Amino acid sequence: MIKVVIIGAGNVASHLFDAFYTTENISVIQVYNRGQKKLAYFENKTSTTTSISKIMDADVYIISVSDDSINSLSKKLQFNNKLIAHTSGSVAMNQISNHNIPSVFYPLQTFTAGKTVDFKAIPLCIEATKINDLLLLERLAKSISDNVYHIDSKQRKALHIAAVFVNNFVNHLYQKGEQICKENKVSFDILKPLILETAKKVSELSPLKSQTGPAKRNDHKVIEQHLSDLNTSAQQEIYTLLTKSIQETHGDKL
Amino acid sequence: MIKVVIIGAGNVASHLFDAFYTTENISVIQVYNRGQKKLAYFENKTSTTTSISKIMDADVYIISVSDDSINSLSKKLQFNNKLIAHTSGSVAMNQISNHNIPSVFYPLQTFTAGKTVDFKAIPLCIEATKINDLLLLERLAKSISDNVYHIDSKQRKALHIAAVFVNNFVNHLYQKGEQICKENKVSFDILKPLILETAKKVSELSPLKSQTGPAKRNDHKVIEQHLSDLNTSAQQEIYTLLTKSIQETHGDKL
Repeated sequence: MIKVVIIGAGNVASHLFDAFYTTENISVIQVYNRGQKKLAYFENKTSTTTSISKIMDADVYIISVSDDSINSLSKKLQFNNKLIAHTSGSVAMNQISNHNIPSVFYPLQTFTAGKTVDFKAIPLCIEATKINDLLLLERLAKSISDNVYHIDSKQRKALHIAAVFVNNFVNHLYQKGEQICKENKVSFDILKPLILETAKKVSELSPLKSQTGPAKRNDHKVIEQHLSDLNTSAQQEIYTLLTKSIQETHGDKL
Repeated sequence: MIKVVIIGAGNVASHLFDAFYTTENISVIQVYNRGQKKLAYFENKTSTTTSISKIMDADVYIISVSDDSINSLSKKLQFNNKLIAHTSGSVAMNQISNHNIPSVFYPLQTFTAGKTVDFKAIPLCIEATKINDLLLLERLAKSISDNVYHIDSKQRKALHIAAVFVNNFVNHLYQKGEQICKENKVSFDILKPLILETAKKVSELSPLKSQTGPAKRNDHKVIEQHLSDLNTSAQQEIYTLLTKSIQETHGDKL
């Protein structure tokens, strides 16, 4: 039985709690949060506390708070030599105070409050300095996910930046697509199957190979027409830059 | 029974043929293509010809050739007053020579040669001038797809541009994400569940509402760090522009 204390009560904390809650051999013995309100979700399921001095003895402590609070919170913990994992994509492992043992337990996914996720499919990126700590995190990770990766802090930083491109920026392009539809009184629903198919294709074919469209074909006539049809300079700037970038990427094949 | 002749033998033509082939009440009586080679796929299933003068009498002719050839090919057809539909997202309906009856039958999807698609989920955008022609196209469209839309040429042009954003440009961002992973020796596979989840989320929540990330949060520290960690000026340019665009879009909420 691995005893876990979760520190923090936000989105990631509650999704991790839910995943562990239904897993044998893992027991979340306590959830700590500074404020009482967010602890309500956990109260009938495990012990909770708002007092840092009352955090219980466990095998692993998972700190799931905002990036900026990880370091300061880890310094306040009143015990020593315990394995502490944070769940952030962009914070280095050594930001956890070294009076305990720093490690990382990073689920690479976008979590929405209230929406259940299937943790089995979510990649978990773990990091620790000593092999025994890594093995403990791996047991913990494999109990809830089929996709566990050993990733160091430099790789994790790169993954986080890549995630900004394929999640944040992609979503913004969806929004631009929706905007163009609205401006022309067309339902955005018509594009949803295409959006899904484009994402699914990546699992079968590298994005380099599956690139299509006027930029890839170097079709100047269509590109000029599109640019003159776009209504806002923001849309035009994005169209121009991404077209140029596709042409540069695929330039050797023209 | 609706009798159809398909003109062209490329990707869209063969996918449409496959969908009609298994549909009752639709009969593709012939496929025409200028070259013999691409007709091989159809030869045991229907009549084929490379001679424009031997095109048979049908209820609908579907022209599925490259955008640039639609106009010239439609002029060469040696019959009159027949319903002719092209399958392009960016060509106006009136590009079809008016010695026949111009119309549009546009499947909004990305087709990969050899990969079977489920046509039921693919939006079909149809356009015609007269109501009877539109109804015939609608019967044809509904026989293979559950998502049939009446879309005029202006709306179709907007849809096509929006599709460049949510398909071509999004795929290019996937490629940038893969590049960043490779540069840092991390498997791109780790990002695939996130890519799929991001696409699925659009069906439930508008992209405007589901935007997350450092740009949305206006987190200057993380943005500066990411920009200095990126290896190429192309990556930095894209990061800078899309960050700016997200900030401008969500600026009123900061």
